[in-house]
Amino acid sequence: MTGIGFDLLATDGRARRGRVTTAHGTIETPAFMPVGTAATVKAMTTDAVASTGAEILLGNTYHLMLRPTAERVAQLGGLHRFMNWDKPILTDSGGFQVMSLSDLRTMSEEGVTFKSHLDGSRHHLTPERSIQIQHMLDSNITMCLDECTPFPATEAQAESSMRLSMRWARRSKDAFVERPGYGLFGIVQGSVYPEQRAESVAALTDIGFDGYAIGGLAVGEGQETMFRVLDFTEPLMVKDRPRYLMGVGRPSDLIGAVRRGVDMFDCVMPTRSGRTGQAFVRRGTINIRNARHAHDERPLDAECGCPTCRSYSRGYLHHLFKADEMLGPMLLTWHNLHYYQDVMRTMREAIADGNFEEVSSAMEARMNEGDIEATVDPIAKPGKPPKQGRPPKAGKDTAPPKVDKDSEPPKAERVEEEKTDE
Amino acid sequence: MTGIGFDLLATDGRARRGRVTTAHGTIETPAFMPVGTAATVKAMTTDAVASTGAEILLGNTYHLMLRPTAERVAQLGGLHRFMNWDKPILTDSGGFQVMSLSDLRTMSEEGVTFKSHLDGSRHHLTPERSIQIQHMLDSNITMCLDECTPFPATEAQAESSMRLSMRWARRSKDAFVERPGYGLFGIVQGSVYPEQRAESVAALTDIGFDGYAIGGLAVGEGQETMFRVLDFTEPLMVKDRPRYLMGVGRPSDLIGAVRRGVDMFDCVMPTRSGRTGQAFVRRGTINIRNARHAHDERPLDAECGCPTCRSYSRGYLHHLFKADEMLGPMLLTWHNLHYYQDVMRTMREAIADGNFEEVSSAMEARMNEGDIEATVDPIAKPGKPPKQGRPPKAGKDTAPPKVDKDSEPPKAERVEEEKTDE
Repeated sequence: MTGIGFDLLATDGRARRGRVTTAHGTIETPAFMPVGTAATVKAMTTDAVASTGAEILLGNTYHLMLRPTAERVAQLGGLHRFMNWDKPILTDSGGFQVMSLSDLRTMSEEGVTFKSHLDGSRHHLTPERSIQIQHMLDSNITMCLDECTPFPATEAQAESSMRLSMRWARRSKDAFVERPGYGLFGIVQGSVYPEQRAESVAALTDIGFDGYAIGGLAVGEGQETMFRVLDFTEPLMVKDRPRYLMGVGRPSDLIGAVRRGVDMFDCVMPTRSGRTGQAFVRRGTINIRNARHAHDERPLDAECGCPTCRSYSRGYLHHLFKADEMLGPMLLTWHNLHYYQDVMRTMREAIADGNFEEVSSAMEARMNEGDIEATVDPIAKPGKPPKQGRPPKAGKDTAPPKVDKDSEPPKAERVEEEKTDE
Repeated sequence: MTGIGFDLLATDGRARRGRVTTAHGTIETPAFMPVGTAATVKAMTTDAVASTGAEILLGNTYHLMLRPTAERVAQLGGLHRFMNWDKPILTDSGGFQVMSLSDLRTMSEEGVTFKSHLDGSRHHLTPERSIQIQHMLDSNITMCLDECTPFPATEAQAESSMRLSMRWARRSKDAFVERPGYGLFGIVQGSVYPEQRAESVAALTDIGFDGYAIGGLAVGEGQETMFRVLDFTEPLMVKDRPRYLMGVGRPSDLIGAVRRGVDMFDCVMPTRSGRTGQAFVRRGTINIRNARHAHDERPLDAECGCPTCRSYSRGYLHHLFKADEMLGPMLLTWHNLHYYQDVMRTMREAIADGNFEEVSSAMEARMNEGDIEATVDPIAKPGKPPKQGRPPKAGKDTAPPKVDKDSEPPKAERVEEEKTDE
């Protein structure tokens, strides 16, 4: 094998069930990649990450080149050994975070010069340097350096930006050192413009890559526009290579994008949300800091098999977040990553079984139902009279479901997510 | 069984090998109890705590009565179920932390009134209330409310304080509800004064408890004085009940106290130090933030079997602390707790084997040796010429050991430790 392998095992409509093969093992697709920014998935051991079913992690070139440096990671055995993760790793090119995190950026045809957000030191990133860094990190899937076209962009701006990315894609390919089980992905740009997306796909296909990412989305355009771009871009892409939608997203984004032929995803949402007390569950989302959870003996999600849901009540998780205890972020991150992998597993099985539409629509419908509130708090706070619980009606075990007020679906905008240090 | 059981299995000099039996299982002694202040051992899952070999945790009445309240813990099934720990739990009485953490304390014969350090709310703690709270928490080993006599104290101050504690011990015993597998420990006070310690032991023995704690130590008196107090107090204590030295300590404190007949310990040192980057290892201590660890491929302690030492280099751990990643505190806490349990295991085996002095002296000698420095950094920072490595001499594989400059032994003063929120 040269590069990385991809087997398309089944399709159902445009949804694809596949398998990516790398030097560090296989990845069943559609796949979600947890983000391990600084050589750690925040608040998780790698054993815990693996236990959720994740088969590949994403590392961030921008963060790692600044600290501890790619040279240091290489000296300590490469990213797999450094962070104790022997499964596949994909690294981004650093371009996106140079734009969102660093100071004093100067773009040129050659590359981008910037100051580190950590210590103000000056750095230069070119397609060649990005590829070299990712090689030193020992990344299984290297990403071309590109410019993530901002949103909104005029057609002229989008075209100029996309064409620069295509020239950089060529230079990235030339700089890439081929090794069995290691591959390079190109990134389709072109903003929301069909002709430009088509030009970008054609340019990349002409160069030839192990896989093709769709970039420049989840940057503020909204889910509907994102799906529209996928609708006119996906049919142009080669069938025999994996497609990766960068920086996406919420569970409903994943479902909609798999429906449109996407194979791979990454997003900080499950990890970042977990640290702030937001849990993704089968019935939408829950903010565990909400006072209504204080007395709740139920798990976050009764159908979830993760360690958090098997062993801890909402009341305990609420307490941990109120007390600012590290175990709160640890347990919610674990749950969220497990839930994301459950969503992917469910979709993979449904595609193989040929009932993707039925299964995915049912998942979407449940997400929109919202959480069911707990029964009344048996111990009221002194000074506050207990709220009257609704007495159970004859023939009914539970009060009718109330939609959780804190289950407003989160916005999954990649730019917003990436502004902090992950 | 009423109360808790204690079997003295072996002795070696004054060192004791025993077994405590509770409604939630047995504890092999000498035992170290990790501190789970707010119903969580900070930065650890309970599965991880159990994996270190810990058989009992300590919970803090002061913290839990304020948040989430004892009533809430009881409503959510008691502390074992609340925090997902089905092994024994000991709770302190709250008295020590009322003194070290709360505001505006007023002591009287009846009890102590104080303001919460969290929200300024007013609370009243009496021996009866403390026992009731610990009952609601479902603690296997309840501690009497006492006054931890400050250090230094005049003989008159110490006597007055000790006698108050003895009257409170009587009231605590009267308030305690007996249940099979649940017990109550009295606390010996009397500062550094032999006569007062003797009076306190006699008073408590007269009342009769399931076990006897030695309080008022590790409050600034220093190791030598602490050992001296143990030397004249331990011979007075009944042999057939466990002895618990509260709030102690460093590994060398544990060894010296086991040598003097102590069976149980608790301390925040392994957890708190772990969060700040200090690791306890067989050759002393290591500050992982020190730059000398950045390139070090070795584990913290090559002889340690914990997950941190089996899978991660010092270079990686250094990176995590530099990047302020949560996984750093998680992994160092895990190692420290594992190491503490290793120290206890080693002592238990040595007492059973009748070679405690030999084994414990060897451990102490190694702790004093200090860490061996790594070889020179193979990649020097730009602008800094690499330090010349010492060429290996003929017949020697390694350079002579250098004592680690950051392995200054930490001070284990309980007052200092308890000033922050643990």
